[in-house]
Amino acid sequence: MDPLTHPFWPVRRATPMLCAPAVPGWSGLLVHAGRAGRRVRSVDLGESTALLTDRYELTMLQAALKSGTAERRAVFEVFARRLPPGRRYGVVAGTGRLLDAVEAFAFGPAELEFLTGDGIVDEPTAEWLGTFRFTGDIWGYAEGECYFPDSPILTVEGTFAEAVLLETLVLSILNHDCAIAAAASRMAHAADGRPLIEMGSRRTHERAAVAAARAAYVAGFTTTSNLEAGRRHGVPTAGTSAHAFTLLHDSERHAFQAQLDSLGEGTTLLVDTYDVERAVRTAVELAGPSLGAVRIDSGDLGVVARRVREQLDALGAHQTRIVVTGDLDEYGIAALAAAPVDGYGVGTSLVTGSGAPTASLVYKLVERADGTGPDAPMRPVAKRSAGKPSRGGRKAAVRRIDAHGTAAVEEITVGEPAPGARDRVLQVPLVRGGEVVGREPLGAARERHLASVAELPPTALQLSGGDPALPTEFARH
Amino acid sequence: MDPLTHPFWPVRRATPMLCAPAVPGWSGLLVHAGRAGRRVRSVDLGESTALLTDRYELTMLQAALKSGTAERRAVFEVFARRLPPGRRYGVVAGTGRLLDAVEAFAFGPAELEFLTGDGIVDEPTAEWLGTFRFTGDIWGYAEGECYFPDSPILTVEGTFAEAVLLETLVLSILNHDCAIAAAASRMAHAADGRPLIEMGSRRTHERAAVAAARAAYVAGFTTTSNLEAGRRHGVPTAGTSAHAFTLLHDSERHAFQAQLDSLGEGTTLLVDTYDVERAVRTAVELAGPSLGAVRIDSGDLGVVARRVREQLDALGAHQTRIVVTGDLDEYGIAALAAAPVDGYGVGTSLVTGSGAPTASLVYKLVERADGTGPDAPMRPVAKRSAGKPSRGGRKAAVRRIDAHGTAAVEEITVGEPAPGARDRVLQVPLVRGGEVVGREPLGAARERHLASVAELPPTALQLSGGDPALPTEFARH
Repeated sequence: MDPLTHPFWPVRRATPMLCAPAVPGWSGLLVHAGRAGRRVRSVDLGESTALLTDRYELTMLQAALKSGTAERRAVFEVFARRLPPGRRYGVVAGTGRLLDAVEAFAFGPAELEFLTGDGIVDEPTAEWLGTFRFTGDIWGYAEGECYFPDSPILTVEGTFAEAVLLETLVLSILNHDCAIAAAASRMAHAADGRPLIEMGSRRTHERAAVAAARAAYVAGFTTTSNLEAGRRHGVPTAGTSAHAFTLLHDSERHAFQAQLDSLGEGTTLLVDTYDVERAVRTAVELAGPSLGAVRIDSGDLGVVARRVREQLDALGAHQTRIVVTGDLDEYGIAALAAAPVDGYGVGTSLVTGSGAPTASLVYKLVERADGTGPDAPMRPVAKRSAGKPSRGGRKAAVRRIDAHGTAAVEEITVGEPAPGARDRVLQVPLVRGGEVVGREPLGAARERHLASVAELPPTALQLSGGDPALPTEFARH
Repeated sequence: MDPLTHPFWPVRRATPMLCAPAVPGWSGLLVHAGRAGRRVRSVDLGESTALLTDRYELTMLQAALKSGTAERRAVFEVFARRLPPGRRYGVVAGTGRLLDAVEAFAFGPAELEFLTGDGIVDEPTAEWLGTFRFTGDIWGYAEGECYFPDSPILTVEGTFAEAVLLETLVLSILNHDCAIAAAASRMAHAADGRPLIEMGSRRTHERAAVAAARAAYVAGFTTTSNLEAGRRHGVPTAGTSAHAFTLLHDSERHAFQAQLDSLGEGTTLLVDTYDVERAVRTAVELAGPSLGAVRIDSGDLGVVARRVREQLDALGAHQTRIVVTGDLDEYGIAALAAAPVDGYGVGTSLVTGSGAPTASLVYKLVERADGTGPDAPMRPVAKRSAGKPSRGGRKAAVRRIDAHGTAAVEEITVGEPAPGARDRVLQVPLVRGGEVVGREPLGAARERHLASVAELPPTALQLSGGDPALPTEFARH
């Protein structure tokens, strides 16, 4: 395999990586260079992400600085030992947020004052942290890609000190966003092309809501109710009115007229505050047959949607669409496949991962140098804890594709992979010598997800519980 | 009831509330004034929270400004129609965060540029938003208090315009934090006085993790691994080392020695990377009998803990404690009650609400004025949607306490409550005329939670599924 065309494997460098500058010769390996490079948005208005981490990472750092092991080269991998029960595939999401968060990972005076004031680290460690920036390399499955048990979806290489510090931040972002995206992907398939509005902000932490909207969009949702997701990530936003707006007015008729006056006849009127039939009649009376849509938020959605469709058609409002909301999940969406529904709003089940609110990804040391010198050999390492064993050695991943273009196997190798002509090498460079190189527009991840699911065997799209859609096979080349 | 001693009910003001200044005469009613007042920390480094909201709140605002209803006085209530399946009580958490977030709810140039640039609001609405600050009143159950189905845990009164804008932000904070606190409270009871370490940051969104650590502390956890929770909320932090630290070194012995050199013999050594028995022997050999603790993260925790206790005792390390971690929830904790365990670390199940990741709280308009004039009468309002009816009218809540000091009934009244001598009126003022008046140290919420649970009937502490520990009764006085 030509090292100039393979982005992941042959990256062993002869010198320790702390403070290593970006290596100029590597630009040829940045497979995303074409669509990346555009800096989309800064993270959290420049706020440091350095304390979004667990205390033990800093106590380990301090002890390693003291024992002389802190600058041993180390490789950590992120993977899931298993998918949530019954799920057929996982979805990588959060990569773009992760890259922003790594860039903002720095210890300023406020962070250091807390750490030393609370006696969490000693002075030498605080001094080390004061000049710390991540200067290592990160590879990962590209955002939107599907994954399976043991898929090495992120690989972090640097000194032990710099790589261990990222553990919690990396896992928080990926565990949350991947969980949301995996649920969203199933919902998008169940909706079968009908638009999906993400509206779960109110049922999850206020900042998690923004990330959830982003992850849902990657996995196929059409719009979100969340305004910050619109501003920060460019996700299209949607929303018109709640029951409170109807209740505020002296009558439903007044409320509808007020909404039409403000938003035009293309708007969506909420018709279940009092009596659905009367509301639909009033709505069409006021807006005419070009009323954009009506929303139903309660009752047996399929039954009500059918009645409303008949009523709208009888009133000549053939173009008026029907949007349904209210405790929908992928099963509820699928159950409405034959109903005259034109769009779904999904809240709680989306932001809680539809029963699997975390992706259970772990961050494990798989290789480290025997010493700190430039020639110290790397050694695979693995714990042997009961029930939680890990596999040592840095891994590469290839999706084996059969003659029909269908994915057949998730092949994971310790050592250089040997992809066939149709196979896809899954890891791409994200950070190179501390520089983010894997940034891309969110739409690219969204498109990639569609393509990645389309390539899976049809069993991947079953909502019923079952095994992962692809077997994971370990190989050693 | 004397209006000067009751904090909640008789607060009807004769003038519209938009831009109303704090009413001087009210200071006597601020029951928390003694312990509040201390500004703990600013919210999110001053970042605006105004876009952490749903688009429909702004489209409703725009339509209401146009129809002349925006400045009608309105009362919204936050409540849960039901508790998660089997749960005996809910726990109010997030109040302190909510107050910070309301203070930071303002539309600056960046927010307005997004809203007008994306065509979400028109120019007159943007102008209105530019000078907007919440000037209304908020009451709520104090943080740490238990709640039950239909308990009005938060009441927001202001103009419709200002109160509707807070809907999503209020719900996001309370739905997340209450869900975590409810799970944490059950775990704290199951731990029966043994310390609990919150260590779930890696399994949830990076900012939700900070709030989760805070909510867990309110509900009885002892410490958190999350450093930002330590800095921002003053939650005590804990943490020593991970398996990676052992794997980094040439041997477990080297790793233990390095940790002891750095953190002292009072530290906690992780003993299950390779072989637990050998690790315990090495640990005591290196640290001596005053080794602080050992941590076990895998295997049958009860069985392993017993063996390790025997071994430690045989080695003379009678004071060395045993901390267990690894997929624990309230049931796993309870199952270890008879094991020689001195502390528990809990991660995933805590930050995901142990099966109930959201508290399902809703924000409903229950009363609004018939017009905008100062004398416009207030009118209870309620939707009649199938399966989701709401009760009109502003509600007061009293916890009825029996002669033994045990809570007996959650009484909710539309109209002025009539508490007996032992009963507790549950709503306290949090915001008065836009000014935060309900701030308090986090420790106060923690103490209140202990007292609130202690007052419940014993059935409240059963882990098995069942009905709410108190019946909710509606009364009209």
